[in-house]
This record gives sequence, structure tokens and C-alpha cells, in this order.
Amino acid sequence: MDIQEQKPFVIGLDLGGTNSVFGIVDQRGQVLATNSIKTQSYKTVEDFVDAGVEALKPIVAKVGGINQIKAMGIGAPNANFYRGTIEYAPNLSWGHEGVVPLADMFSKRLNIPVGMTNDANAAAIGEMQYGVARGMKNFIMITLGTGVGSGIVINGQMVYGSDGFAGELGHVTMVRGENGRMCGCGRTGCLEAYCSATGVARTAREFLEKSSEPSLLREIKPEEITSLDVSIAAGKGDKMAMEIFDFTGDMLGAACADFAVFSSPEAFVFFGGLTKAGDLIMNPIKKAYEKYAMPIFKEKPKFLISGLDDAAAAVLGASAIGWEL
Amino acid sequence: MDIQEQKPFVIGLDLGGTNSVFGIVDQRGQVLATNSIKTQSYKTVEDFVDAGVEALKPIVAKVGGINQIKAMGIGAPNANFYRGTIEYAPNLSWGHEGVVPLADMFSKRLNIPVGMTNDANAAAIGEMQYGVARGMKNFIMITLGTGVGSGIVINGQMVYGSDGFAGELGHVTMVRGENGRMCGCGRTGCLEAYCSATGVARTAREFLEKSSEPSLLREIKPEEITSLDVSIAAGKGDKMAMEIFDFTGDMLGAACADFAVFSSPEAFVFFGGLTKAGDLIMNPIKKAYEKYAMPIFKEKPKFLISGLDDAAAAVLGASAIGWEL
Repeated sequence: MDIQEQKPFVIGLDLGGTNSVFGIVDQRGQVLATNSIKTQSYKTVEDFVDAGVEALKPIVAKVGGINQIKAMGIGAPNANFYRGTIEYAPNLSWGHEGVVPLADMFSKRLNIPVGMTNDANAAAIGEMQYGVARGMKNFIMITLGTGVGSGIVINGQMVYGSDGFAGELGHVTMVRGENGRMCGCGRTGCLEAYCSATGVARTAREFLEKSSEPSLLREIKPEEITSLDVSIAAGKGDKMAMEIFDFTGDMLGAACADFAVFSSPEAFVFFGGLTKAGDLIMNPIKKAYEKYAMPIFKEKPKFLISGLDDAAAAVLGASAIGWEL
Repeated sequence: MDIQEQKPFVIGLDLGGTNSVFGIVDQRGQVLATNSIKTQSYKTVEDFVDAGVEALKPIVAKVGGINQIKAMGIGAPNANFYRGTIEYAPNLSWGHEGVVPLADMFSKRLNIPVGMTNDANAAAIGEMQYGVARGMKNFIMITLGTGVGSGIVINGQMVYGSDGFAGELGHVTMVRGENGRMCGCGRTGCLEAYCSATGVARTAREFLEKSSEPSLLREIKPEEITSLDVSIAAGKGDKMAMEIFDFTGDMLGAACADFAVFSSPEAFVFFGGLTKAGDLIMNPIKKAYEKYAMPIFKEKPKFLISGLDDAAAAVLGASAIGWEL
């Protein structure tokens, strides 16, 4: 047996726009220790890696040192799985460096294999290893956060495509033409522009403006409304908040109907803040899917909420890449 | 070595709405002999299989008998790869029988393994084995015929999805809401309703109606215009015919931009009558793709026309499944 295989732990790094969280994870998906640094406090990627290696020291020591670690997995925005690089990440302080070989940099410093993929793909791998997608060969993970991300699994494999960037389902065009909302990607009408946290907040502002219907949301300054406010109001039975979720769910369900013709997944797995609303968002999604899906794909896929704990999921998902190296 | 592997030929069956063409194919993709029967002349699938087995006898004899045949592959509408069945095919005279286990039926009669997939998937496999997609691990085949079909290859594997029916890209929704054209699938706004041969003919009728611009197409009765007429007129420089191709290409390019976020293919390979128009259709597709694609996917995929001869491609594609059994 390969000695490598006996090493009992992997490192997961959830590299987010605000925090970079390092965790040590065992084979059952237990996060044994974590530490974090501020992603944006470093001007260069070298400084960031230095700080990361320092942050790892105490938690690696806790599990018996680096020789107990099989590998490290990184979930990061704009990550290229094939090259282990972060490419042109507009939201990272050192993203202007262009193509950043982050996996290699950590690998050289830690002397272990390091793999990297984007955060949504990492979430999908985590779900497959430890969550509700265990045993599934075909599913689509949709992360509803600041943006809308996705991780696609087909034939039991992550879909990275020809260049490592496949699975950007937040950027399918849902509204064509001049009526489409501006999206952060520079185009208009993307799913993300409607169904991300900021998209839902924007829908709320539009709904409040175009009607005079009373709503709990009117107690909040329009520019300060968040998707969480909509969730809370909907949870209290606020009619307009529920209509906002119906609108959001309708678009997500319509998008899933299009995704089904592509890979006919066994399940759509949703992750992120918006899923906290439970049936209030999931029921409109399912209803819209059944309305829009091709007859042959109706009543087939499951619509699931991630089985992973929010706080741990990103680190867990990133670490799961480590087992595959 | 397995004796099976030494058998030098496979049978391909291109089961179409009109003709069912059987061919004997060697390992280099040469179609050595063909024979055909009329698909719709049989009331039951048993009669169809009987006639098929009879039609195979002379061409199988030509290559030395059934013990020279490794396997048979069938490309057919509504085919389920996993189950080897044709399911609820509305356009086949014996389709009303529901789930037809055609692969098994031929396998029992011929005593060889028989596999089946839909015609567009078969075309993709043929393209990967013998055509312009040789060596590609990630590409999308789009067949522009009576309908719009597709075959998706990811990580070197055909995408069949959880139920065997994945890859129906002709049915992504391109025009949402009440303005969408009726599609044969019972929904509205599908890519197929615009970019199939009948879709292009319909576009021609709409364009002729809404303007009084002179066009060669006005010499044909509107209800008799075909996509071939549009091709011929465009080839002669007819302005309206070229606008019809621009409209069609724009929608295909926009669709490809959405497909790219899914699987980021190395190439889109187009097959079918419409591709005969060459640059007249391919240039609008490429132009639209560059206009609509996410920045990260711009200028990446190739846009190719199938390298397979039309007459042979369907049989070749179907037969290619045989090598994989």
C-alpha cells in the first residue's frame, strides 16, 4: 500500500472575498481544527501565502504535524482546476497579478499535493463526499450566495470542461434583450442578476416601487433591504415577500428545466443563505420546474437542500479535493 | 485476448422516421454494405425486427457471416441508452407500443450485443471516432435537421444523464413568455422551434410577411418554402435570405454561449442540411457567440462543420456504439 494513502488528514482552504479559512479534516468529514486570515489584508500573493502557512502551523501541529497530512484542497473564486491557478479575480486584492499559481505556491511551501477549484465545485465535491449527494453520479449543485455558482457532476465526475472553468450556471441568460438586468460579469439578463442575494434584494426594491401594497419590507430603507430581510418577512407570511420568492423560484425552476435537457441530473442540490427559507423558496422552484420542464424530464429530479452545515461546508468541500489528489 | 475483440465488423442501424438503414462498418469507419427498409411499413415492432433481420442477411453474408460481427449499434429517436429501449416515440408507427426493447429484440435474433442511443448522440460518437472531433474530450454536437438534436461529450464520455435522455439541447428555452414559438415538444420558445429546418422555413415566412423587401423567396409559395430554398437564395446573395440566416445564426450562437457556461467545450460541431450553407450560417453563429459569451469563454471554442459524409454519418455514428459494447 502507498504510504501516502495512510495519511489520515487533509487541509481545506475556503478562500473567500473576506476571509480565508483553513481547516484540518479527517476521512469522515470532521473538521478538527480551523484558523483564518483576512484575504484582502495582503498586497501580494506571496504575503498571502506566507500568512497562510503561518496560520496553518498551529492547527497542523494539533493533528501531529505535516506528515499526517495527505494533501490540501482550495476552493476559490476564478480558480482553474487544471492549472491550479486563480485567474484574473477582480475581487481579490492580489487578483490584479493575473494568473496566480496558488496551488503550486502552497505545495512548495508545505511539501504536499495541492489542488484547487472554484467554491461552487468544491461545495459539489463536499456534497458528494459527505452530504445529500452521496452515491449520486449525476447532480447539479447550485449555490445561492452573493453570486449564483454551480458545480456539475456527470458520470460521477466533476465537469471542468476544456479549460477548467465549466459550470458557471449563474451566467446562463434568463432574460434576453434590453430588459435584462446588468450582471457583474458585464453582460445582461444572467440568472445571477436575479437569484443571487443581491438579485433578490433588487427584486424586492422593484416590487416595492411598482406597487403600493403594504409589506413589512416597507419598514426598511429600500437601499438597505437584504435577501435575509425578505426571508424573514416571508417567514412571517408577508405577501409581497412571498411574491418575491415566487418570482425568484420561478426563474430558478425555469433555469433548472433548461439544465435538465443538458445533463438530466438525478437531483438539484441548493446551498446558501436563500435556502434557509426552506419551502418558501423550494416550493416555487419545484412548481416552476414542473411547469417549464420537457415532458420527458418532468417529475424526475429531486430538489434538495444541502446536507452540509454552512460554516463547515466550504472548508469541507475544499478539503474533499485533497482526497482526490 | 478475447475472441470477441478480433471480430472485424459492426452493424450500424440508422432508424429514421422514413427509412431504417443498416450498414456493415469496419474499424476504419468504412461502410462496406448497406440495406434499408421502410420504418413505417410495419404495424408492430416484431414485424419491423423480422424485416430488419431479413434485410441484414445479404449484407452480413457479404462480409463472411454473423460470426464476423462484433456488435450492433442503433441510432433512433427517443432511444434510451441505459435500457436499450425506444420510449414513447410519437413519430413511429409502432411507437404507440410505449417502451419498446428494440436492442434486446435484435440482440436475441442476431446473438450479438446491441446498443442504442438517440441519433444525435450517435452522430457525436461517430464524429469522435471518425470525424472532426477525433481526440477531443469535450465537445458538443448540434444536429440541424427536421429537429435540432445534440450529443454532449464531457471528459471523453457521452453524457446520458441519470435516465439516458440527457443532451436535448434543441429544447432549451430561447424565447420566454407568450412570444415564444410553439415547439413540437408541447412547450414554447425552444431552440428547435427556430433553428430546425422547419423553424428556418417559418422564419422565412415571417420575414416575408413583415416586410415588402424584394427577395428570390417571393417566387415560392410561402407555405412551400424550405430551409434549402433559403440556403439557395442566400448563396445567390439574396439579402432577405441572408437576414434569415443571420437571425438563425444569432440564436444558435446565443444558445452556444449558454452551453459554454455549462461544459466549456473545446468545439461545437454542427451537422445537417443547414451546414451546407457554410459560412453563410457559420459566420453569424460565431459572431453571435462572441457577442453573447461570458468574457472567460470568448474566443475559446472552435465552430466546426461535421467531417462525416451525410449519407454515411448516421449509420457510421450508430455503428460506433457497437465498438463500445
